[in-house]
Amino acid sequence: MINAYAAFEPGGELKPFQYDPGPLDADAVEIAVEHCGICHSDLSMRNDEWGMSTYPLVPGHEAIGTIAAVGDRVTHLKPGQRVGLGWHAGYCMVCPSCMSGDHNLCAEPRQTIVGRHGAFADRVRADAASVLPLPDGLDRASAGPLFCGGITVFNPLIQFDIKPTDDVAVIGIGGLGHMALQFYRAWGCHVTAFTSSPAKREEALGLGAHETIDSRDPAALKAAAGRFALVASTVNVKLDWNAYVATLKPKGRLHFLGATIEPLDVSIVPFLFHQYSISGSPVGSPATIKRMLDFAARHGLNPVTEHFRFDQINEAMAHLASGQARYRIVLSH
Amino acid sequence: MINAYAAFEPGGELKPFQYDPGPLDADAVEIAVEHCGICHSDLSMRNDEWGMSTYPLVPGHEAIGTIAAVGDRVTHLKPGQRVGLGWHAGYCMVCPSCMSGDHNLCAEPRQTIVGRHGAFADRVRADAASVLPLPDGLDRASAGPLFCGGITVFNPLIQFDIKPTDDVAVIGIGGLGHMALQFYRAWGCHVTAFTSSPAKREEALGLGAHETIDSRDPAALKAAAGRFALVASTVNVKLDWNAYVATLKPKGRLHFLGATIEPLDVSIVPFLFHQYSISGSPVGSPATIKRMLDFAARHGLNPVTEHFRFDQINEAMAHLASGQARYRIVLSH
Repeated sequence: MINAYAAFEPGGELKPFQYDPGPLDADAVEIAVEHCGICHSDLSMRNDEWGMSTYPLVPGHEAIGTIAAVGDRVTHLKPGQRVGLGWHAGYCMVCPSCMSGDHNLCAEPRQTIVGRHGAFADRVRADAASVLPLPDGLDRASAGPLFCGGITVFNPLIQFDIKPTDDVAVIGIGGLGHMALQFYRAWGCHVTAFTSSPAKREEALGLGAHETIDSRDPAALKAAAGRFALVASTVNVKLDWNAYVATLKPKGRLHFLGATIEPLDVSIVPFLFHQYSISGSPVGSPATIKRMLDFAARHGLNPVTEHFRFDQINEAMAHLASGQARYRIVLSH
Repeated sequence: MINAYAAFEPGGELKPFQYDPGPLDADAVEIAVEHCGICHSDLSMRNDEWGMSTYPLVPGHEAIGTIAAVGDRVTHLKPGQRVGLGWHAGYCMVCPSCMSGDHNLCAEPRQTIVGRHGAFADRVRADAASVLPLPDGLDRASAGPLFCGGITVFNPLIQFDIKPTDDVAVIGIGGLGHMALQFYRAWGCHVTAFTSSPAKREEALGLGAHETIDSRDPAALKAAAGRFALVASTVNVKLDWNAYVATLKPKGRLHFLGATIEPLDVSIVPFLFHQYSISGSPVGSPATIKRMLDFAARHGLNPVTEHFRFDQINEAMAHLASGQARYRIVLSH
């Protein structure tokens, strides 16, 4: 039996929940969970905000642990090895995206907490293809968030061939944004943080931003016209996107990493003059996760984390929901 | 003196207009105009739809002619050479975009009919850098529209590295779209035309489309889900963009070539799952125009044109405004 924490209804408290995972699939592994980050999407799934939750629902998709068991066909992971697991717990492996190395765009992905049980538990299972060894040099107690938030902000650097000579900017200095600042700084870019609160200015500079722009000051936004090759939005609220588009340099890209639900309401006319793009992307492929982990280890990049015990899980979820987390929360056994 | 046709007020008829162009700039050439296409933006500028028209306004920016005179510093064009001129009549040559070969994204471009006089005239002037020799094998009476409409639809193939193995689609089978079908077919792609009228289906197939989809049939659009690497919109009206986004394959791009004024009103959520992009672009750089011309000559691509004499210019403009042109109109002396 696996001992987990589950919500039994939308918005419900997490309560102890035991389930029998059955025999281990030949291509799967079982991970003995040591730590698991809490991502905003764990909250969204608990609350059924996206209409795809099933209950009992065991959240948790930023897991670090050791391989407890491997399926019959698993050859590249060994029992005892320390690994991490993120949003995806498997891929179809045969659709055009998987066949092209874009497993994160798989037509029928297995998602760790969608229709299966996640890592707020003592053990979690996933297809071996979605599980990555944790490189030496990464702190296992804080590395969990790299497997979802970290890869989410790193992936655009690879997908859009961002160069160390580029000027980039980040909207939102939270769970995603604080990692974006670190990664983009280590990538060699000039990094600007759009911040809405003066309190976050010093934090942003400490995390890697070369400068900050007060996003509530229209004149400051206007003064940044034509500057950025990439503006990465990590927020999930509606902003004046046209004002951010205007900060792009020719061929620049406004890229969405946060799930902004309201329609974009963007004028295409400036795009026709300056060849701008708007885009979005989900996490990253296993190959890109590996590159991200190696890069983070080499540059000493770590999520900034607060720590709770698993039996404080509801307190931890409430802390995240309050918007006060600085910046990612990790649960530990 | 140059003998031209000018509008003297927004929406006004074009009337004969003479002006003295003064001494020829050292970096400029004077072209003896033989033919000039009419582009929808000539109408928009005549009507001051974009608020940047000055009167008297001489439209015309798809000119074919011969070099009548060259400025003192011009070395790469010779009197008598047959050339073409498009939307841009010069570039600053020193901004980052010009320095990177992206002259069409120049920070301070000279636009052939914005604040200067265009090619509805017996002669027109432009900086030599913006004037391209017409390759042998292109029909001079129909080649004019290549220099604006043609390069506009060709440029995305280069900018976004579209492969001959890609499935692409075109929205709108008109002045731009009918050239897009030809270019994308010759590029080696599988080409789909979205058409709103059954009458255009046969025309689209004749122009190069492998198939057509009735854009007024929601079920047909839905059946095309996940197919296209590139959907190029050549229209200037608001459509159900979310429905077209759904026809993109993972990493696909909805690219705007027509000036749709209404905000996009697009949901970003599917972008976060499938790494879609939305973008736009203006014409192309001189280097890309040269590639386009050579490609068109090699593959025998020609705008489909209707022909009027310059003294029928108002009749020709009215024909374009009526939406009945099949597909580009060319004025000839």
